[in-house]
Amino acid sequence: MVAPSPDAHVAPGFPVVGVVGGGQLARMMQQPAIALGVGLRVLATSMEESAAQAVRDVRLGSHHDLDALRSFADGCDVVTFDHEHVPPLLLKTLADEGVVIRPGGRALVHAQDKLIMREALTAAGVSCPQWSAVDEVEQLEAFGARAGWPLVLKTSRGGYDGRGVWVVSSFEEARALIGSTTLAPGARWLAEEKVEFVQELSAQVARSPHGQAVAYPVVRTVQTDGICTEVVAPAPGLTDDEAVAAQQAALTVAKELDVVGMLAVEMFETRDGRVLVNELAMRPHNSGHWSIDGAVTSQFENHLRAVLDLPLGDPSALAPHAVMVNVLGTDKDGLYRAYLHTMARDPGVKIHMYGKDVRPGRKLGHVTVVGDDLDDLLARAHHAADYLAGVIDE
Amino acid sequence: MVAPSPDAHVAPGFPVVGVVGGGQLARMMQQPAIALGVGLRVLATSMEESAAQAVRDVRLGSHHDLDALRSFADGCDVVTFDHEHVPPLLLKTLADEGVVIRPGGRALVHAQDKLIMREALTAAGVSCPQWSAVDEVEQLEAFGARAGWPLVLKTSRGGYDGRGVWVVSSFEEARALIGSTTLAPGARWLAEEKVEFVQELSAQVARSPHGQAVAYPVVRTVQTDGICTEVVAPAPGLTDDEAVAAQQAALTVAKELDVVGMLAVEMFETRDGRVLVNELAMRPHNSGHWSIDGAVTSQFENHLRAVLDLPLGDPSALAPHAVMVNVLGTDKDGLYRAYLHTMARDPGVKIHMYGKDVRPGRKLGHVTVVGDDLDDLLARAHHAADYLAGVIDE
Repeated sequence: MVAPSPDAHVAPGFPVVGVVGGGQLARMMQQPAIALGVGLRVLATSMEESAAQAVRDVRLGSHHDLDALRSFADGCDVVTFDHEHVPPLLLKTLADEGVVIRPGGRALVHAQDKLIMREALTAAGVSCPQWSAVDEVEQLEAFGARAGWPLVLKTSRGGYDGRGVWVVSSFEEARALIGSTTLAPGARWLAEEKVEFVQELSAQVARSPHGQAVAYPVVRTVQTDGICTEVVAPAPGLTDDEAVAAQQAALTVAKELDVVGMLAVEMFETRDGRVLVNELAMRPHNSGHWSIDGAVTSQFENHLRAVLDLPLGDPSALAPHAVMVNVLGTDKDGLYRAYLHTMARDPGVKIHMYGKDVRPGRKLGHVTVVGDDLDDLLARAHHAADYLAGVIDE
Repeated sequence: MVAPSPDAHVAPGFPVVGVVGGGQLARMMQQPAIALGVGLRVLATSMEESAAQAVRDVRLGSHHDLDALRSFADGCDVVTFDHEHVPPLLLKTLADEGVVIRPGGRALVHAQDKLIMREALTAAGVSCPQWSAVDEVEQLEAFGARAGWPLVLKTSRGGYDGRGVWVVSSFEEARALIGSTTLAPGARWLAEEKVEFVQELSAQVARSPHGQAVAYPVVRTVQTDGICTEVVAPAPGLTDDEAVAAQQAALTVAKELDVVGMLAVEMFETRDGRVLVNELAMRPHNSGHWSIDGAVTSQFENHLRAVLDLPLGDPSALAPHAVMVNVLGTDKDGLYRAYLHTMARDPGVKIHMYGKDVRPGRKLGHVTVVGDDLDDLLARAHHAADYLAGVIDE
């Protein structure tokens, strides 16, 4: 039997923020919530979830259940998210009933539906890869003829961490994939140019309802099988002009889509120095985990400040370089025991674990190191992450 | 009605740390506990206490109640403290029953009883102000003749934040004070030389059961009415030799007293460059709050690492200077509203609030700024703290 959780308690005048979703992003919001004296309530599906371990006020329920969402929101000053999976119709219903939801449903839909996102960004003049909706097979053939093969097929809704994205090398392969794949409700097919990129970038901004916005240093991300595995802040080799262009694109997206909270704009840097928008996330993002240890104000604190309409914190880096590497599960399980070697070998590595059971490929945590020597930081962060995951023995 | 709290949940193999006491120190341990994936259980006296707001596993009970302590400790891998007020006999009983308590009762008694501390430090060759037990009025008269008036009278037990400490200017005043003051159970009177100091220092170290120890930069503390109100890290004007001497004194104290966890050694720097030990605390300490934002590893993380016998983290500073100023309650109450001005004026100030109702003189939180220009940092930190407290309007 699980005892029910007591309500959040805060000092007089302080707000309670409700976070839909009990993953590691909600978990890591609790650290700045403690500092700010803000109450955090989490809607989780079990008391064992990552964020449910870290806060006092846990509500159990599904983000697909309107009654659960209603009861969860009752007593929260603002509701925000750990993920993008709450159905838009439920968000609209709650908003119509007076719940303060940030980011709002009309902004969030651009992080939920990649076709709506492409239409809006293109209309706003933000550079994207070539793209086309694919509702008819003729559209696919025409787009392939225009953008060339291979290309990228995506479902507009329901994908994350590499799911719902395929690289297809020919029209026949694409047609077969579409024929054998069941779309999520409300989802459509989308084809995109396969961009030859120099590196993948992420530009994060925080934006408040007031319209204040701050931009984090643009970072380089490395994806492995669609999962972000390494982040370097700032992105190596980016010129000041390129970095500013990426930040300005992210600020434009935030403003045009009326985003409130953290926005991550994942981009491709092309060989000719352009930046093209790949994906959006309207919440703290894996590409900003370095900011907990590496920036004056972490993305988690600025997300809370933004959704509470507080003035935003300084996003500047504390050191010349920061490197974040994810700890992905293997078939070994000895994470806590691995602390002994990892911490003894490198007293400067910052370990962040998410309270999850080990499963192969699962994001269990991340490590961050900050300092002056990027090669050294990369070696240290990868060693720590590999050792914690059980990939190496020494 | 308050719902009972659910047990701490952690990933397989991860430990649960029990913290006796629900104040801000336990609250601020939750932030690194989240990062390390460690469960935190707090023994509090109400669900409204500072730390009880921030953790899932809250147990209600008194630290004077053996049964409450026993039931609290059941399921904890190690028990540690937010304060020094658990009676030594109860600690011994729990330890005899197999509870792992860190720091152990035999170390902790030196932070509980100032006479036992003075005896141990003097035996270990650590420099202290002149001191004498005062069980008889003749001892007071003799010590006054030797050390000179005014001098400092203290109760050996039961004092904190300036309570239990008096400066008395004459034998008559001292005798009258002793005659009119009821000692706490087990407490004795202690007289100490009133040291003319250049500045007050705090040297913090973390020490693990293995015997590993790390020393934080020595800081300057400013006390107002016995409450620590300002900390500058590192202490200005201290020579390298003086800083090393202070760190070595703290390391000696930690080793000689077999301290596990954080140890703060409060010291006086005398006009002739000596450092004399004033007080000890065996837990995270107000003089180390700067380390949350200003050091690679905060005192709260190193306290957890030490009591879990994990290798200790790097205590180095992230910037040339850090300034921490406490937010003390006034008769005004508009703390959260004051965030608007404070954050807008200075996006780099780090605010830490403890979830407490406002009462005049009460420690409600603290602010920290780090950077290169000490005068600027001092001005910014004091402005932010004063504005939050309601001392100034702009």
